[in-house]
Amino acid sequence: MKKRLLIVGGVAAGASCAARARRLSEETEIIIFERGNYVSFANCGLPYYVGHKIKIREKLLVATPDYFKRRFQIEVRLEHEVTAIDRGKKTITVMDLKSGQEYTEQYDFLMLAPGARAVKPPVKGADIQGIFTVKTIPDADDILDWISRHKVHDALIIGGGFIGCEMAENLHELGIKVRIVEMLPQLMPQVDAEMAWFIHSHVKQSGITLSLHTKVMEFERDSESTICVTLSSGEVVKTGIVISATGVRPDTALAKEAGLAMSPSGGITVDNYMQTSDPAVWAAGDAVESIHVLSGKPVLLPLAGPANRQGRLAADVMMGTNPEPFRGVQGTFVCGIAGLTVASTGLGERNCKDSGIQYEKIYLSPYHHAGYYPGAAPVTMKLVFSKPDGKILGAQSVGMEGVDKRIDVISMAIQNNGTVYDLEQAELCYAPQYGSAKDPVNMAGMIAVNILRGFHPVAHWDDIKQNRAFILDVRTKREYQNGHYPDAVNIPLDTLRNELDKIPGDREILVYCLSGQRSYYAVRILLEYGFNAKNIPGGYMFYRDYDEYDE
Amino acid sequence: MKKRLLIVGGVAAGASCAARARRLSEETEIIIFERGNYVSFANCGLPYYVGHKIKIREKLLVATPDYFKRRFQIEVRLEHEVTAIDRGKKTITVMDLKSGQEYTEQYDFLMLAPGARAVKPPVKGADIQGIFTVKTIPDADDILDWISRHKVHDALIIGGGFIGCEMAENLHELGIKVRIVEMLPQLMPQVDAEMAWFIHSHVKQSGITLSLHTKVMEFERDSESTICVTLSSGEVVKTGIVISATGVRPDTALAKEAGLAMSPSGGITVDNYMQTSDPAVWAAGDAVESIHVLSGKPVLLPLAGPANRQGRLAADVMMGTNPEPFRGVQGTFVCGIAGLTVASTGLGERNCKDSGIQYEKIYLSPYHHAGYYPGAAPVTMKLVFSKPDGKILGAQSVGMEGVDKRIDVISMAIQNNGTVYDLEQAELCYAPQYGSAKDPVNMAGMIAVNILRGFHPVAHWDDIKQNRAFILDVRTKREYQNGHYPDAVNIPLDTLRNELDKIPGDREILVYCLSGQRSYYAVRILLEYGFNAKNIPGGYMFYRDYDEYDE
Repeated sequence: MKKRLLIVGGVAAGASCAARARRLSEETEIIIFERGNYVSFANCGLPYYVGHKIKIREKLLVATPDYFKRRFQIEVRLEHEVTAIDRGKKTITVMDLKSGQEYTEQYDFLMLAPGARAVKPPVKGADIQGIFTVKTIPDADDILDWISRHKVHDALIIGGGFIGCEMAENLHELGIKVRIVEMLPQLMPQVDAEMAWFIHSHVKQSGITLSLHTKVMEFERDSESTICVTLSSGEVVKTGIVISATGVRPDTALAKEAGLAMSPSGGITVDNYMQTSDPAVWAAGDAVESIHVLSGKPVLLPLAGPANRQGRLAADVMMGTNPEPFRGVQGTFVCGIAGLTVASTGLGERNCKDSGIQYEKIYLSPYHHAGYYPGAAPVTMKLVFSKPDGKILGAQSVGMEGVDKRIDVISMAIQNNGTVYDLEQAELCYAPQYGSAKDPVNMAGMIAVNILRGFHPVAHWDDIKQNRAFILDVRTKREYQNGHYPDAVNIPLDTLRNELDKIPGDREILVYCLSGQRSYYAVRILLEYGFNAKNIPGGYMFYRDYDEYDE
Repeated sequence: MKKRLLIVGGVAAGASCAARARRLSEETEIIIFERGNYVSFANCGLPYYVGHKIKIREKLLVATPDYFKRRFQIEVRLEHEVTAIDRGKKTITVMDLKSGQEYTEQYDFLMLAPGARAVKPPVKGADIQGIFTVKTIPDADDILDWISRHKVHDALIIGGGFIGCEMAENLHELGIKVRIVEMLPQLMPQVDAEMAWFIHSHVKQSGITLSLHTKVMEFERDSESTICVTLSSGEVVKTGIVISATGVRPDTALAKEAGLAMSPSGGITVDNYMQTSDPAVWAAGDAVESIHVLSGKPVLLPLAGPANRQGRLAADVMMGTNPEPFRGVQGTFVCGIAGLTVASTGLGERNCKDSGIQYEKIYLSPYHHAGYYPGAAPVTMKLVFSKPDGKILGAQSVGMEGVDKRIDVISMAIQNNGTVYDLEQAELCYAPQYGSAKDPVNMAGMIAVNILRGFHPVAHWDDIKQNRAFILDVRTKREYQNGHYPDAVNIPLDTLRNELDKIPGDREILVYCLSGQRSYYAVRILLEYGFNAKNIPGGYMFYRDYDEYDE
């Protein structure tokens, strides 16, 4: 009567499923088939292993086959690739990659956790030596080996997403000159363009070269240790190593061939119990399509957190424990590059536009802890919320400290359908070295609530181009002299009440300062005196970069 | 038609109220009366100013009277004490402390934000020189002056709450030998006893002396630079300085004399719009009683976050903007001592017992970020939740890193009536240097949900004393040999399946390991084989200290 659970893929979703299934059932026979050489390894750690931050290779092995055997009575078959599923007979065909022999195994439950495959740019020369992806431990080994054998001084990274950025940081810290080539006009396309400008300026300052809006056209071997890379700009770059980090694609060949339902996004279709179109087959992790909780739209989200929870949930369902369904994904992420932290949760402005969701947005840049305590660093945040109900749609943040904390708090708020009123009233940890009496999360909520309640009319830089408003800069004279919006008139906040006669009463007044706080005060004064004033949240901090981006 | 808002007290609640009122109304005349020498100063920063972490004294002045005038047209009268309220005439009597002259002022709106006063222990000699409280900038100046004039080498701190602990850290870092004397058996009585043990062991290791369960009986001057302190233990300690940090009491004399309703807790009674029993008088901050959102009980919570939000809300109400009511307080706090962070939100176990709230509790001690990434530090957490609905009642945490983040996330969940199911499914930031694919918050949720769903029966160390269970230690032989529960039998987890014959079938089996994770695995195995097994969350980590505490 022993039932059999066979699992295809033994990293995040597969390993989680296996361990959970064992905890729920001692009876079930559980076998993991992994085509690679390692099971349950720390693939998110690979860039840091390359960068010698993780110094001990064994640390990457979160759990070994021996551990699975010893602790969980789970059999792991490494270098065994599942090549076919016979859903009628409930069997899989397995290829032992070492011996080349094929065999079949019977299942009661089949779990597909094949993950995703790294995509290499489909250009000429993409298969020459010295071009690497970063998906597996052998990949990392190969990169380190290549770097040391060829005494690599220059690296070219294709793709400015998470892996590209993390590899850039790590190679840079090894003393290698790094260039990131990204075909989009920005790094980390998961955040909106104006938030990415902060990443760009930080990355450039750290000494990493950026080639945005640029494609790779061709690779050519120059010498044994040099590769010539032709860019769409016409530039030809010589480099010692190429890291291809242009994204991943769900590894669905097996599922497709077995006739399981596939989603338009390219992932395996599953319900919110991770069940595929075949009731004896489950799937989880990078290979499945998920539903975004805020847009209701299908997305591919190759991240470890959801993968682990999905794998675990699938085991619950198989073992009949009747768990809560998977709620969908929010797209929460964090990525570090050269000391900067970038994090986000929920929908960005671009996503809202794409999904036709009505939204308002604000920007703020408060310190991560009390300004009077040494080391205070700005947390630059963008909050997107719906009007008029104030439901939180998403938040993005960049900064050196305290960024992940604020995004995690807002992610939790989103999880429970939170509004900006919840952020306003949040009671968060405060002591001067940890936060502020009004935490950045409170500040974001307060600003948004002021907008919803009508005290804080706002406009955005994009709006200005379309109207003939009076642009008022309420920063100090010195700040103004160092750079300002072309047509802006400067009246510092503290003298505004005495110079109201300089403000036209028959036009819209758009007010800005450096970040949006002083200009908010100014708007309040102007509104009280009967002017038609609006604030530009984010202020000059965002104008300057906006302009730069436009070029 | 200009209306007048008079504000008594100009620190957190008073200053927030003033600034918000101005933003909502240019018309209103606003005057702050502050009996001290400073307005809107960083009182939470005082210990760090004493410890030279905040090196520039001016940094403590968040806003000066000049700033209030310039930016907000708000008049600040320092060293002016409001001595009486005539509610019938709507006037206050003010004493100019410098000139000694009294005068009256008329109000339309009166805001009481007098804060709280430091309580000195009512013992003989409490008024001799060299004994200080830490409430104001002059207090900090006096402490620094005393330390340098008397070349202080030893300090005795009375009170192990937030201020006491922060002062201990800061004086210790100045090279002064510090002893904390606390009449309760633990530091930071806001957390439960078993969480405080971690604080005690850390504080002692850092070189600070603890005298818990100890009262100060008498102070005596020994020499110009030495004070003799007699403790309830009989010990007589010579010390160069005494810091009295035994708590604060709402400063309600003015409100009482004016006949405003007072609460049994000793705070001014306000509704959830911060209005007192007189509709023309508001109150906020340390002087008012708040309602705890989870227990529904009145509490005094002298913290800056609620004070700021309450002051701001009162201004909204006065100015007729019809804001959301104050939701009550959760008791979220954080405190650092000697590198350790202690944070909490919601109710502790003790609070639940006191309020007759049914609860279950768990402990866990996962790393603050991926274990394979260097620098991973344990976040030791206690989560208290209700059964069977899983509503989160509170969380407490101690650790070196990432503690405030997890408490903030759980605080946000509580704000929205969150359950442990929400924690289980939370989608939080993950990259190896920031968190884990299963964040400690997820882990806490998963453990709790397992209990609610019946997969994870638990017992606690307290329960053991009352029953005759079989105690099973599933750690390694070496761990067991280094110390174990007296009657425990050791069967390491990995050999448990082969030694089931050693487990009695007719008794309850209570299983522990170091932290509760391996023992959970063991419990799952035992349950599957039909044993009546329960896990002890927190494991030996909590037993050892439990024992110590009992002595």
